[in-house]
Amino acid sequence: MSSAPTAAILLIGDELLSGRTQDKNFNYLASQLFLLGIDLKEVRVVGDVTTDIIDAVRPLSTRYTHVFTTGGIGPTHDDITTDSIAQAFGVEVIYHPQTVQKLREYFETIGRTANDDRLRMARLPKGAEIIENPKTIAPGFRLHNVYVLAGIPDIMQTMFEGLAPKLQGGTPMQTTTLTFLCGEGDLAGPLRELQNDLGADVRLGSYPFMENGTYATRIVVQSRVITRFQEAQGRLQALGEALMTAGKCQGIRREDTNS
Amino acid sequence: MSSAPTAAILLIGDELLSGRTQDKNFNYLASQLFLLGIDLKEVRVVGDVTTDIIDAVRPLSTRYTHVFTTGGIGPTHDDITTDSIAQAFGVEVIYHPQTVQKLREYFETIGRTANDDRLRMARLPKGAEIIENPKTIAPGFRLHNVYVLAGIPDIMQTMFEGLAPKLQGGTPMQTTTLTFLCGEGDLAGPLRELQNDLGADVRLGSYPFMENGTYATRIVVQSRVITRFQEAQGRLQALGEALMTAGKCQGIRREDTNS
Repeated sequence: MSSAPTAAILLIGDELLSGRTQDKNFNYLASQLFLLGIDLKEVRVVGDVTTDIIDAVRPLSTRYTHVFTTGGIGPTHDDITTDSIAQAFGVEVIYHPQTVQKLREYFETIGRTANDDRLRMARLPKGAEIIENPKTIAPGFRLHNVYVLAGIPDIMQTMFEGLAPKLQGGTPMQTTTLTFLCGEGDLAGPLRELQNDLGADVRLGSYPFMENGTYATRIVVQSRVITRFQEAQGRLQALGEALMTAGKCQGIRREDTNS
Repeated sequence: MSSAPTAAILLIGDELLSGRTQDKNFNYLASQLFLLGIDLKEVRVVGDVTTDIIDAVRPLSTRYTHVFTTGGIGPTHDDITTDSIAQAFGVEVIYHPQTVQKLREYFETIGRTANDDRLRMARLPKGAEIIENPKTIAPGFRLHNVYVLAGIPDIMQTMFEGLAPKLQGGTPMQTTTLTFLCGEGDLAGPLRELQNDLGADVRLGSYPFMENGTYATRIVVQSRVITRFQEAQGRLQALGEALMTAGKCQGIRREDTNS
């Protein structure tokens, strides 16, 4: 699994840390990266504070193949992501001439003045590559391996959709979920043995829940190696049948093929 | 604002990073900490990987007054939070005798065997203090300034409710939201001046959105100093009225008093 490209997400915004806004970007990006075969390794959330953004983005950029940030690229005083990312990499911020032109045309079309504040959204770190925003024009950008996206979920998603085909992806992770109608404590021992036996190419995750007042456990099987994935599923199925025979499990159910 | 106690959250779980599970704990904890007057400064999410947990919890514990972790304290092989936190602080993990006893009684009551795997949930770092779990008995714990909570949201919330009265809180943040029926780009200039003028005890956050096809902006005012909070509200109201007179804003509306 270790050869897959890796990623981190950095969510930026005071409104997330105060609890005022419920983030929707983490789960969207996590799901998309999973489909692209990119291993999301870490997520961080910081406020609109230059030093906090810099202190987060530098180690993430060093450690992982891709870093995605969301939030803080609008026209107001609390939109400091562009300047902070530029500062993190020691480059200056300049007006991007084509974006200035596109923003002027866009604001004219929607009957708004292209004032200095609105044109701030055409400021980009020198050397950055534009990430298009078909919805409201003001772009995101890539600087080195850091992709700077909008905070508003539908704009962020449109940016990511345009970006995804250009990202270095990996072998997709195969995944399936088996629900065992038994308590996690009865599964834990044999599951631990099975995980040890299967080794590092296969990961078994265990997630207990209540179903109609009885204990149940979802076992998520993941592997990038298709033969190992099939082997793991077969052995898990056999484990469930053995637990049923022993009266410790009331049933096994396959949940889905890709979630 | 700088004298308030601070906090970080560390969410632990592969299921969050793969996008399979949408986290609910971050927003709950963020909202609760806000009410307690504790400044949440940073959130991190890592997978079920010992080194990743250790590398995250150590700097967070050093930097902030309180650290809250969620997830990874169940009975299965992928529940490695307890051991990782103990290792981060260089202490051993031991069976907590009273918890062993309580778990034995609990599993007997619900007709389950108190096997070795279930009793693993009574393993705690030496010197840790129990955080009670009235729902399913298996406790969380505090080690130094790190509070280790369950990952299942309703169990986590019950643990936090028991814990909250004991936490060192701070002066609650006063907060209100004014909605301006105008584009963020028209507000940005005067808002930037107002923020500069008000200084660091008051924070103005600006959040654009669309309402019935027209541009609108929520301005969130926050301060711990009540006189400065009132001053900021008055000046923001005056700013809105000036923008309306200038024909740049279609209205102002107070959203709420505490969100």
